[in-house]
Amino acid sequence: MEIGFLGLGIMGVGMARNLIKHGFKVMVWNRTISKCDLLVEEGALLGKSPAEVVKKCSITIAMLADPAVALSVVFDEDGVLKSIGPGKSYVDMSTVDPNTSCTIHKAITEKGGHFLEAPVSGSKKPAEDGTLIILAAGDQSVYAEVLPAFEVMGKRSFYLGEVGNGAKMKLVVNMIMGSMMNAFSEGLALTDKSGLSQQTLLDVLDLGAIANPMFKLKGPSMIKGQFNPAFPLKHQQKDMRLALALGDELSVSMPVAAASNEAFKKGRSMGLGDLDFSAVYKVMMDQSSPS
Amino acid sequence: MEIGFLGLGIMGVGMARNLIKHGFKVMVWNRTISKCDLLVEEGALLGKSPAEVVKKCSITIAMLADPAVALSVVFDEDGVLKSIGPGKSYVDMSTVDPNTSCTIHKAITEKGGHFLEAPVSGSKKPAEDGTLIILAAGDQSVYAEVLPAFEVMGKRSFYLGEVGNGAKMKLVVNMIMGSMMNAFSEGLALTDKSGLSQQTLLDVLDLGAIANPMFKLKGPSMIKGQFNPAFPLKHQQKDMRLALALGDELSVSMPVAAASNEAFKKGRSMGLGDLDFSAVYKVMMDQSSPS
Amino acid sequence: MEIGFLGLGIMGVGMARNLIKHGFKVMVWNRTISKCDLLVEEGALLGKSPAEVVKKCSITIAMLADPAVALSVVFDEDGVLKSIGPGKSYVDMSTVDPNTSCTIHKAITEKGGHFLEAPVSGSKKPAEDGTLIILAAGDQSVYAEVLPAFEVMGKRSFYLGEVGNGAKMKLVVNMIMGSMMNAFSEGLALTDKSGLSQQTLLDVLDLGAIANPMFKLKGPSMIKGQFNPAFPLKHQQKDMRLALALGDELSVSMPVAAASNEAFKKGRSMGLGDLDFSAVYKVMMDQSSPS
Amino acid sequence: MEIGFLGLGIMGVGMARNLIKHGFKVMVWNRTISKCDLLVEEGALLGKSPAEVVKKCSITIAMLADPAVALSVVFDEDGVLKSIGPGKSYVDMSTVDPNTSCTIHKAITEKGGHFLEAPVSGSKKPAEDGTLIILAAGDQSVYAEVLPAFEVMGKRSFYLGEVGNGAKMKLVVNMIMGSMMNAFSEGLALTDKSGLSQQTLLDVLDLGAIANPMFKLKGPSMIKGQFNPAFPLKHQQKDMRLALALGDELSVSMPVAAASNEAFKKGRSMGLGDLDFSAVYKVMMDQSSPS
Repeated sequence: MEIGFLGLGIMGVGMARNLIKHGFKVMVWNRTISKCDLLVEEGALLGKSPAEVVKKCSITIAMLADPAVALSVVFDEDGVLKSIGPGKSYVDMSTVDPNTSCTIHKAITEKGGHFLEAPVSGSKKPAEDGTLIILAAGDQSVYAEVLPAFEVMGKRSFYLGEVGNGAKMKLVVNMIMGSMMNAFSEGLALTDKSGLSQQTLLDVLDLGAIANPMFKLKGPSMIKGQFNPAFPLKHQQKDMRLALALGDELSVSMPVAAASNEAFKKGRSMGLGDLDFSAVYKVMMDQSSPS
Repeated sequence: MEIGFLGLGIMGVGMARNLIKHGFKVMVWNRTISKCDLLVEEGALLGKSPAEVVKKCSITIAMLADPAVALSVVFDEDGVLKSIGPGKSYVDMSTVDPNTSCTIHKAITEKGGHFLEAPVSGSKKPAEDGTLIILAAGDQSVYAEVLPAFEVMGKRSFYLGEVGNGAKMKLVVNMIMGSMMNAFSEGLALTDKSGLSQQTLLDVLDLGAIANPMFKLKGPSMIKGQFNPAFPLKHQQKDMRLALALGDELSVSMPVAAASNEAFKKGRSMGLGDLDFSAVYKVMMDQSSPS
Repeated sequence: MEIGFLGLGIMGVGMARNLIKHGFKVMVWNRTISKCDLLVEEGALLGKSPAEVVKKCSITIAMLADPAVALSVVFDEDGVLKSIGPGKSYVDMSTVDPNTSCTIHKAITEKGGHFLEAPVSGSKKPAEDGTLIILAAGDQSVYAEVLPAFEVMGKRSFYLGEVGNGAKMKLVVNMIMGSMMNAFSEGLALTDKSGLSQQTLLDVLDLGAIANPMFKLKGPSMIKGQFNPAFPLKHQQKDMRLALALGDELSVSMPVAAASNEAFKKGRSMGLGDLDFSAVYKVMMDQSSPS
Repeated sequence: MEIGFLGLGIMGVGMARNLIKHGFKVMVWNRTISKCDLLVEEGALLGKSPAEVVKKCSITIAMLADPAVALSVVFDEDGVLKSIGPGKSYVDMSTVDPNTSCTIHKAITEKGGHFLEAPVSGSKKPAEDGTLIILAAGDQSVYAEVLPAFEVMGKRSFYLGEVGNGAKMKLVVNMIMGSMMNAFSEGLALTDKSGLSQQTLLDVLDLGAIANPMFKLKGPSMIKGQFNPAFPLKHQQKDMRLALALGDELSVSMPVAAASNEAFKKGRSMGLGDLDFSAVYKVMMDQSSPS
């Protein structure tokens, strides 16, 4: 199967490489062309534009930074829309809000193309390891078609029904994750101010009912005040905002998510937006002389 | 080693049985004496009062329902205080607030006795399986003395320093757990209202960075609307309140814990206090016709 | 001065009548034409469409239900845009979000017309009494031109600069109002559950530093469980959401507004959206047997 | 009528002076005796201890800084308890929690004395002007007896039933006030970040349905960053905490008060506890470079 791949950022490069490694014939494109070099050396073909990639490949996968880029890759000159049509499938694995996904879906299908949204859960490492979780929704025949590719990029994929459902499921997961990170940060702060050992808290947590990979991975660096951005705080806050907007639409009151969202916003106001989302810990800790 | 054991409730019976099984000579006491029968058949001696148990055993362990009971077992007539003194150790594994623990500690040591607080993380099943996590604080020589007993009741024990630290660590852990349960419940509610499958959410969560035993265990029953009390909502709310009070004392602002606490309080006002704390899910879901 | 007036809802009818009473020549239009009858009897001319009104009048004022209607009156067939142009002014007094206002502004000015947004603070009674507070922003020459009309519709008008500022100021005011209503409702609930007299609370509040017309007006009916919609809960919630969105854009963390917003959302989920926003009180009170 | 008056702090001195001015014979006592000098010059008698004051006067009023002082004035050597008994009335106007009030009540009545709690709403200026609002509860015959004194110290007094009700009503009022101050602060912050004039916001608010003396009085100084303590933030936070504790006891969920409480706690952690409670505004504003 020949597969197009648009977007070789942090995530995309690992995903495309996994396709190549497993014998797929892949044509890659990236806005900054030089980022394609390595993969071309490893066997990828080079596409000059999204339009060219779609023209050459029956299936094109995209992994783009945000909704704005996802839209421009489709709608700009020499974008996906120029070549999409009957017999062509477009699989957008970027994380976008349900509305953006629906906009792209509509444009693709109006030209006779097939569309599948397939945002992922997991960041850089799982992308490299081929252990992403893939939340697909849209055209089920495309899902069947692209499944072999999903199987080398992810450890599990889900088909969730109509377009938008993939985006929504991802928002739910990230909302829970964001509130958990706040709960964890508050706990670390309270531990510290109580004169207890934060490392002991991590050890205790890791043995119990709420032990989870995120606490285990992020805890030690949070204690050290290290917040290298695996998932930037401003992106986490954006997902909280979108999840809350979804809840607003559906009359679901979510006070804990709302409180978490305000903490992330406070983080942004403190200039922490580009750090890892675990930097929300600094919102709880930054203080001068208590009174 | 001969060990006294006061309190054969849900937790205590499993813990005492593990001691017996592993060859400790155990004298048990429980307010409702009949609860001792089974353990006596299994080899335990029967104590007529806390005072008698303390008199006969060099170490006495207590596992009591709440701070009020923990205090009465010590201070009432024929209570622990009557027999405690030099050469005697009292290990309170009940979950109590730091102040209660300090009150008991003071009374015990004033009479020359030795005191260790040792609240546990884990509920009925880990108590039976001997896989509790034990958070000990107080007299370090008692910790060393009782360690063989801890080793058969728990999978790991921590020595945390001065009296109060065990109680505090436990509050931190339960605070994080309570906020996580709220985050999880909000996510389940949003999933449902979005027309997505809650079971799929559980599957997705279980594969990712925030997978944890609590979501895995409680999720399926929450979806079914089953809230058999492993840890009653009103006790979880009490722990949130105490953790917030600790934060208040130390000037630690914890808005997510505060929002979670209010949700648990709402649960109490809806009559859910005696159900499992996962019933906070009903606070998010109970609603009539949206507008 | 001849003035067009579009929209004779709860607010518009009082405002237009005040213009007529004070000697302005007014041409009115309303989607349901019959609502114009009374004002025509009182001396108003009848316009057949927004386009006709704008064609006949140099200034046209609009007072419409929500952003959707505000947009359709401008952009639909025979809408404002059809006749607007050089020498024509359009003053939108509807409550809309900053984006909607900017969209209308852009369309009007591209055709050479002049635009002023002028949302008001105050509801039915102040509209009838001519005591609205008018928050104008946009073309300052229009502001000068329409000032005589503002003076009979309102007790005070403010010129706030560029388009969007009127909408923003109104959101800030309504956000504060919404949180105050929540604070008030929580206080009434706590009073009741404490076995204190809610009427006494109202009396005490009315004598002190936080006495305000809203508590005085709404308090007695809230106690009686009466929530006739002067300002529907769903509109208040929408304004909270928009204010929070503005804060999100500007990195302003507003945890109290966020908590209030979730309470209003809970109100919507309970079917209270069409009642007065003071019905958020029912969110605090509705409960069964506490435990 | 001869009246004893214990406590000549910011509030007490104005209250006692009003009694003297209106012809009451007053015996004063203050821990720092020198604070009595001015009032003695104005006609007051000097008491050497609370016990002496109670011995000489049939009614003794106390206005003390906090629960700890209120307790020590009663229970310490040469305290109120030493002389209280049948025919003697003790009126505690200090702001204390319901529990403290009940403790004092019990001690007084066990010795045959009569007790009335009578916390006030209002700060320094109303104390001087005799325009306090008095929230009395307890022995109704004492209320009748002390009413002439209340009438010169306050503009209105309420009799609220059993001991504790005065304290509770005051907590409700201060809770509403604290949340309003948060709502106001968030609004001021949002106004500023939106590029709007904060003075205009104050003007708009003052004309509308939520106009109140507190916004009018505090707004201008908050804008200037002046927070001279009329009511210290740490005391406001304490009252929020106590109101939330009351709600906890009664199963009343109050998420907005909880969010406000956390903001005040954040204020304390930033070292603002001794400033005016309006300094919670700094919690919303203090930030570095947003991202």
